[in-house]
Amino acid sequence: MLGARLATAAVAIPLLLAIVFVAPPAVLSCLILVLGLVALAEYLGMALQRQRADQALGFGCGALVMMVAVWIVEPGLPLAAALTTAVAGLLAGIVLRPVDLKVGVANAALSVMGILYVTILAHFVWLRHLDGGPYWITFIIANGMSSDTGAYFAGKSFGRRKLMPRVSPGKTVEGAVGSLVTAAVAGAVCQKLLFPAEAVSTMVVLAILLAAVGQLGDLCESALKRAFDTKESGWIFPGHGGVLDRIDSLLFPVAILYYYRVSF
Amino acid sequence: MLGARLATAAVAIPLLLAIVFVAPPAVLSCLILVLGLVALAEYLGMALQRQRADQALGFGCGALVMMVAVWIVEPGLPLAAALTTAVAGLLAGIVLRPVDLKVGVANAALSVMGILYVTILAHFVWLRHLDGGPYWITFIIANGMSSDTGAYFAGKSFGRRKLMPRVSPGKTVEGAVGSLVTAAVAGAVCQKLLFPAEAVSTMVVLAILLAAVGQLGDLCESALKRAFDTKESGWIFPGHGGVLDRIDSLLFPVAILYYYRVSF
Repeated sequence: MLGARLATAAVAIPLLLAIVFVAPPAVLSCLILVLGLVALAEYLGMALQRQRADQALGFGCGALVMMVAVWIVEPGLPLAAALTTAVAGLLAGIVLRPVDLKVGVANAALSVMGILYVTILAHFVWLRHLDGGPYWITFIIANGMSSDTGAYFAGKSFGRRKLMPRVSPGKTVEGAVGSLVTAAVAGAVCQKLLFPAEAVSTMVVLAILLAAVGQLGDLCESALKRAFDTKESGWIFPGHGGVLDRIDSLLFPVAILYYYRVSF
Repeated sequence: MLGARLATAAVAIPLLLAIVFVAPPAVLSCLILVLGLVALAEYLGMALQRQRADQALGFGCGALVMMVAVWIVEPGLPLAAALTTAVAGLLAGIVLRPVDLKVGVANAALSVMGILYVTILAHFVWLRHLDGGPYWITFIIANGMSSDTGAYFAGKSFGRRKLMPRVSPGKTVEGAVGSLVTAAVAGAVCQKLLFPAEAVSTMVVLAILLAAVGQLGDLCESALKRAFDTKESGWIFPGHGGVLDRIDSLLFPVAILYYYRVSF
């Protein structure tokens, strides 16, 4: 398991850095679109199990939103148009198809939530277009990886108290604390290597905040999986579960970092 | 019933025109905010019956989105930030509160859909800020009223074939056709009075399109009410049902008209 994860990471990380720093922004947009569509398909597969027609409608509406979201360089009017179309399309789908109204409404609602949830991924594209975007994307990824690694080893070594057994039985308080510690260290390292102009305290506080929010996001995806009675969201990456399992802890941090960067 | 409807209309229409044409745009924003918040409360009251805590969380997240939506003059970055916060807040609410995961996820999804649905109302504010905005808002309202009136009288006089008994038992095909006819006539009248620069054919086609979409929106709200086992969404306007019952046929048209106006 650990071996497979390291092998995947050894291929994925250099490739990702090349895409973020060297390739034109459109390449990152395409990557995010593909990841987003796979994540959406995984989500709909879990949320609307075996209801193929509703999955297809949700995927179509979500694909429209994702395509617009990665096409634009910041969230604006076209995204509002796409979202409105998606919601109207899902509601019209309840009326115009001969589905049970209760099931139809429940499935439309789950689809809307999944679309909005997965589309958070587009903040990577919008962050890429900001000043120093590639560096901030690297920071998010380093933050996620260091936080995951710290949680894994601290949990394995010292894990005793359950963090939230109702949602995710494997996670421990010690793992969560370890994740914040390694994220703080990685934040300081990033400051030295990538952001000499930022104060080290800013980067450390930001790193801890993002790691904490990332773990909350991880728990949210666990809650979704539990509610839908599934274990893993998919099987794309060897040892890593599905795309949704990989991106869950990045979604909230990348959104926070994006709005932080446009505000300050 | 008809008397109460006419009396409400006799008060509401001149007031509305004064707000749209005479008052500063902020007054319309406030009105839309109030209507949106009441509609959201009605929706949550139907969708999450008797689950007060989830209703409160959904209302809080939705109020944030609505407030941002009516504050800005066109949909943009702040709205994306508010929506992301709302979705993350609702998901975090499943994790951080001791709720049943299945119920929590279903309620969060229904809340997200309701928030997006009701926030379509903010297109009135954005439309108001466009060139000739007050005239186009008048057109939307005239379109909705003429369409409703045509549907009512054509349905009462000639109504025979059920339009969609699965969703709304009272509506007839004859009523739907009548609504398109009166909307077309009202579109031609609006062209003469309000839009001398537009072609009459444009206005008539637009009026028919908006009336058709408005009826689809009306059916969507009926489907929601049926799925939630409710008859009327509220009791605010005498004879008119709740706010949601009043605005349901305006939501899709105002969005379409707004994107039409920014595109052409």
